Amino acid sequence: MSDYKKIEAVRHSLSHLMTMAISEMYPGVGLGVGPFVEDGFYQDYDLEQTINPELLPKIEKRIKELIKQDLKFEQHDVSLDEAYAFYKNDPYKTEMINDLKSNGSTTVSFYKSGDFDNLCAGPHVASTKEINPDAFKLTRISGAYWRGDEKNKMLQRIYGVAFESKEELEQYLEALEQAKQRDHRKLGRELELYFIDDEMVGKGLIMWTPNGTIVRDKIEALAKQKEDDYGYKRVSTPHIAKEQLYLKSGHLPYYQDDMYPAMKMDDGTYYLKAMNCPHHHRIFQSKLRSYRDLPLRIAEYGTCYRNELSGTLAGLLRVRALTMNDAHIYCSKEQIKQEFIGVLRLTKEYFDIFGLNNYWFRLSKWSPDNKDKYIDEPDNWEYSQNILREALLEEGVEFQEADDEAAFYGPKVDIQFKSVIGREETMSTIQLDFAAKTRFGFDYDGSSGEKGTDVFVIHRAPLSVHERFLAFLIENYAGWFPFWLAPEQVRILTVNDTVSDYVAEVEKAIKGVVLMQPLKYNELRYSVDDRNESLGKKIREATQFKIPIQLIIGPKDAEAREVSVRTRSGEEKISLDGLSEYLNQYN
Amino acid sequence: MSDYKKIEAVRHSLSHLMTMAISEMYPGVGLGVGPFVEDGFYQDYDLEQTINPELLPKIEKRIKELIKQDLKFEQHDVSLDEAYAFYKNDPYKTEMINDLKSNGSTTVSFYKSGDFDNLCAGPHVASTKEINPDAFKLTRISGAYWRGDEKNKMLQRIYGVAFESKEELEQYLEALEQAKQRDHRKLGRELELYFIDDEMVGKGLIMWTPNGTIVRDKIEALAKQKEDDYGYKRVSTPHIAKEQLYLKSGHLPYYQDDMYPAMKMDDGTYYLKAMNCPHHHRIFQSKLRSYRDLPLRIAEYGTCYRNELSGTLAGLLRVRALTMNDAHIYCSKEQIKQEFIGVLRLTKEYFDIFGLNNYWFRLSKWSPDNKDKYIDEPDNWEYSQNILREALLEEGVEFQEADDEAAFYGPKVDIQFKSVIGREETMSTIQLDFAAKTRFGFDYDGSSGEKGTDVFVIHRAPLSVHERFLAFLIENYAGWFPFWLAPEQVRILTVNDTVSDYVAEVEKAIKGVVLMQPLKYNELRYSVDDRNESLGKKIREATQFKIPIQLIIGPKDAEAREVSVRTRSGEEKISLDGLSEYLNQYN
Repeated sequence: MSDYKKIEAVRHSLSHLMTMAISEMYPGVGLGVGPFVEDGFYQDYDLEQTINPELLPKIEKRIKELIKQDLKFEQHDVSLDEAYAFYKNDPYKTEMINDLKSNGSTTVSFYKSGDFDNLCAGPHVASTKEINPDAFKLTRISGAYWRGDEKNKMLQRIYGVAFESKEELEQYLEALEQAKQRDHRKLGRELELYFIDDEMVGKGLIMWTPNGTIVRDKIEALAKQKEDDYGYKRVSTPHIAKEQLYLKSGHLPYYQDDMYPAMKMDDGTYYLKAMNCPHHHRIFQSKLRSYRDLPLRIAEYGTCYRNELSGTLAGLLRVRALTMNDAHIYCSKEQIKQEFIGVLRLTKEYFDIFGLNNYWFRLSKWSPDNKDKYIDEPDNWEYSQNILREALLEEGVEFQEADDEAAFYGPKVDIQFKSVIGREETMSTIQLDFAAKTRFGFDYDGSSGEKGTDVFVIHRAPLSVHERFLAFLIENYAGWFPFWLAPEQVRILTVNDTVSDYVAEVEKAIKGVVLMQPLKYNELRYSVDDRNESLGKKIREATQFKIPIQLIIGPKDAEAREVSVRTRSGEEKISLDGLSEYLNQYN
Repeated sequence: MSDYKKIEAVRHSLSHLMTMAISEMYPGVGLGVGPFVEDGFYQDYDLEQTINPELLPKIEKRIKELIKQDLKFEQHDVSLDEAYAFYKNDPYKTEMINDLKSNGSTTVSFYKSGDFDNLCAGPHVASTKEINPDAFKLTRISGAYWRGDEKNKMLQRIYGVAFESKEELEQYLEALEQAKQRDHRKLGRELELYFIDDEMVGKGLIMWTPNGTIVRDKIEALAKQKEDDYGYKRVSTPHIAKEQLYLKSGHLPYYQDDMYPAMKMDDGTYYLKAMNCPHHHRIFQSKLRSYRDLPLRIAEYGTCYRNELSGTLAGLLRVRALTMNDAHIYCSKEQIKQEFIGVLRLTKEYFDIFGLNNYWFRLSKWSPDNKDKYIDEPDNWEYSQNILREALLEEGVEFQEADDEAAFYGPKVDIQFKSVIGREETMSTIQLDFAAKTRFGFDYDGSSGEKGTDVFVIHRAPLSVHERFLAFLIENYAGWFPFWLAPEQVRILTVNDTVSDYVAEVEKAIKGVVLMQPLKYNELRYSVDDRNESLGKKIREATQFKIPIQLIIGPKDAEAREVSVRTRSGEEKISLDGLSEYLNQYN
C-alpha cells in the first residue's frame, strides 16, 4: 500500500461502500470495474432499471451510515476455483478472473467489508473510521461500455468525489460549478456564438453565427495586422488538393486514416486539405526564388480537415474542420535564430493582448539514442537545438527542455498553458523542419549565382486552431470578452419612447469614436434596444449577452444631458459631452 | 446563297484556297471540316508532320497567288457512288458522305476551283477576284479532335481571319492584340496574382499568391464594409455538409453530377458545398425567429465547388472552387421591394467604386404559358414581378424585361455587362426565391404571436464569383488596378546608395497617409527598391508590376528635398513637404 496515497485508499473504499448500498437496493446487481480516479472514484453497474440521479442523496446517506459502523476492510487470498464459484453468475468478474489467470495468478485477492466480499487488488483503508463522512459526494451517472468497447453492453457508471476535509470538497464543488458556468458549450449557446447542426451539416463542423463571426473576424484581423508588422505575406489556397501533393509531403499513406475519404475526379484523386504546409510549399516553388526572397513568411488563416470518429466530437474542442492561424517561414540556416526570435516575440505580443500570462515554453528535442524516430541530420539537430535554446534565453522567457519529444523532422518549441480551470495543455507549437527541403526539393539562387538548397521551414500557429483557441478564451473570460473582442460592445437601453431624439445624439457620440488598440481603426459595435419592454427585461438580455457597456437612457438623463453607464464594475453617470472621452479609455 | 453574307462566302472560299496550298505542300493530306466562322474560317488537316506556325506566311503567300489567278468556284452534283469512289482513301470525307446518305441524299454537292474538287455545300464566291488579297491573315494552329470527340484522332486546325477591307483586318488584329495584352492569364502571371498547380494541387483550383491575396482581401473588405452599412450580418460556415442538407435543398439528386463525389464517413455521407444557401437557411433556422428579426441579411464570402470536366478549366473563368460575395436576405412579402431596392443601390455603389458603367439590368420573368418550368404560386409570381419592376423604375436604372427566363423558384434581375473586349455576359443576379420557405419550413413569431411562414429569400452576389470578377477587372483595367486595389501602391526607387537617410524621411511621409476612400482607414502599401541595380532596371520591374506611383530618389532630389513622382500620366517633381498632400489626392 505504500505506493498509494491515503486519499486514494479512501476513494477506493468509498467505491466499495457505494456498491454495498446499491446491492442492498438492487440485490444481484452486476459489477463492472470500480477504481479510484483523480479527485474521486466510480463503479460500473449492470442493472435492468435505470438508476435515477435523484437516488444519489439516498445512496450517500446509506454510505454515511456504513462509514459510522466502523467496518473493517480485510484482504484475503482466494483460489481460482473458489473465485470462479463465487462469481458463477457474474460474467464481468468471471472475465476479470480469466485475465488474472492468463497472467499466471494461482490465487486472487479479495477484500471483505461487513458482509460484502469482493474481488479486489486494493488499496483500502483499514477501517471506515479513516473516511471523513462529510468530505465525499456522489456527482453524476453516465453510461459506460464494458471495457470501453462499444460492441459490449452499456453499464451504468456512478461517479463520486472524495477528499480529506469538508473544505477541500467544497472548494472542489465550487470549482466544478465555475467550470460548468464557464463551459464554452454553454456560453457558446447563451452568447449565440456558434451552433452545430448534427442532423444536416454534420458533427464537428462549426456554423459561426453573427456574434461568433465577429469574434472570429476580429482575431483574424489581429493576426493579419501583427503579421503585416512582422513582414509576413498573405496567401489564400484551396481546401483540396490532388493525392500527388500528399504523396510528395508524405501525408499519404502515413496519415491517410486521419484524412477525409478520397474523391475521384476525371483527372485524378482529390483530398480535403490535411495540413496547410504542402500548399504553402508549392507557393514557395511557384517562381524562381533568390536569396533576397529569404526569409519568406507565408501566412494564411487556413482550414484543415480531420476524419475524427463522430463519437469523439464535442463543442469547439474536437472538430473535423479546423481553421488555423497558420504560417510557414522559409529561411536559410543562418536566419533560423532571428526568425525564431520573431515568432517568440509575436507570440508574447498576442498573449499580452489577450491578457493571458499563465504559460511557459517547452523546448522539445530529439534523442541521439533513438535515431530511428528522427531525420538523420545530426549536425542540424545539434545546431538548431542550441540556436533555439539561445533564442529562448535571449528573449528571457520561462522554458523547460524535454528530451526525445521533438517531431520527426526537427526540434520544436511548445507553448504550454494552464487553463483557468487548471487543465494543462499545449496551446500551440513552433516547429523547425529539416525534412521539407529534401522532400520538395526547394532551391534558390544564392548571392554569388550558385544554387542554394538548404531551405529551413518554420511551422507556426501561435493562435492555435481558431476553434480550440476560442473555446479556451470563452472559458478564460467566462464569456466576458475584452472590449475589443465583444461581439456587441455597447447597447443603449431606453427607459421609454420619449427619449428617441436624445438617443440619436448619443448615437452620434458613439459613432465618432474610433479605437486604435489593439486593432487599428475600429469603430464601435453598438445597438439600440428601444423596444416597448421593461428596462429590467432589457438589462437581463444585455447581460445574458455579456455586453460590456450598457447605456441606460431615461427622460431624466435626457434632461440632464447625461447617460447611466452600466458595466460589470457598477453604474455611473457620464455627461453626453464626456461620453466620447469615456469610451476612448478603451484605447 | 441568299442566306449567306458575301463575306462568309469569301471566308469559306479562303478555306478552300488554303487547302489547295496545303495540298501542294503535302500531297495526300486528309481533310476534316473547313467552315467559315465569326471573323474568319478554319480547316482541319490529318497529316503525319506537324505544321510549323512559321509556315503560315508561306501559305498566305501561295493563297494570294491563287487569288490572283482569278479561279472560279463551280458547284456540281455528284452521285453517292462517284463520291465514295473519289474519297475511297479518305475516312473523314467517307464518314461525311455516310451522314448525307443516311439523311436521304442521293447526290452530294462538290465545289471545284482550279484542279481542286471538294465535297462541299458552299457557299463560295463565284471567282477569287471577289476576295481582297490584303484583307485576310492566317492566325494560328491548334489541335482538334475529329468531330470534337476526344476518342477520335487529333487533327491539325489552321485558323484564318478575313474581312472586306485591309482596314477592317488591321482593326481586328489590333483588337486581338489588345485582348491578348489584357488576357487575365497573361497579366495574372506577370503581376504575380495567382497560379494554378495542375500537377499537385489540381486544375481549376486557384492558388492566390501574395499580390492576388491583397486584391482579394481588399475586395472582401469592401464587401464587408458596404454590407455593414447596409445592415447585413456576417456568418462563416463549413465547406462541407451531409447529404441530408442537399436532399432537403433539392441539390441532390438534381444537381449531383455537378457536385464533387461523396465522402462516406462513420456518421453519414458528406459533400463539398454546392451552394451557400442551404447553410444559410440552417442558420436562419438555428434559433426561434421573430418578426423583429426580419429582414435578416446573412452574408458570407463563401466557397462552393463544382465538378467541371478538367478539360474545360481555364484561368480564373472556369474554376472548380469558386468564392462568392454571397448573401441571403430573409424577409416578409411586404419587405421584398425595399430589400430589392437596397440590393440595387448596393450594386450600383460597388460598380461606381470599380469605375464600371457599361452594364444594365434584365428582369427575367416566368411564363404563365410554361407552368411546368416554374413553382406553382401564380399570385406570388405576378405580385413579385410587379414589385421588382417598380423597384427598377424607382431606382431609375436601365433595364430590359425577358419572358420565360426566370429561375424555377422566382423572378430574378440579372446584371448584364459588356466587357472591354466586347463580350456580353451576366455578371451577377439578384434572385427572389419562393421555394425555400416550403422546402425548409421557415417560420417566425408574428407581431401578434401567430406563426408566420411566408419567408421570402433573396439570393444576391453583386460582386459575382470572386475568381470571375477578378478576371473581368484585370481585363477591364489591363492590369492597371485603381490605386486602392493595387497590390503595391507606391515604390521608392533609389538612384544610388547615398540617399538612404533621405529615403527614411520619405517613408515617414508615406506611413503617415491614411486613405478613407473607398475603404476606410487604409494605410499605403509600399516598398523600397534600394538594390544595387540600374535605375532603368528598377523602373522596368516596377512597371511590369503596374505599380501606380513610382518615387524616384537621387542625390539631387535629396538635396532639393523633393521626389520625382512617376505615374502613367508622366513624371513630376513634388516636394517632400507636399508628398502627403499629393498622396491624399487618392482619397
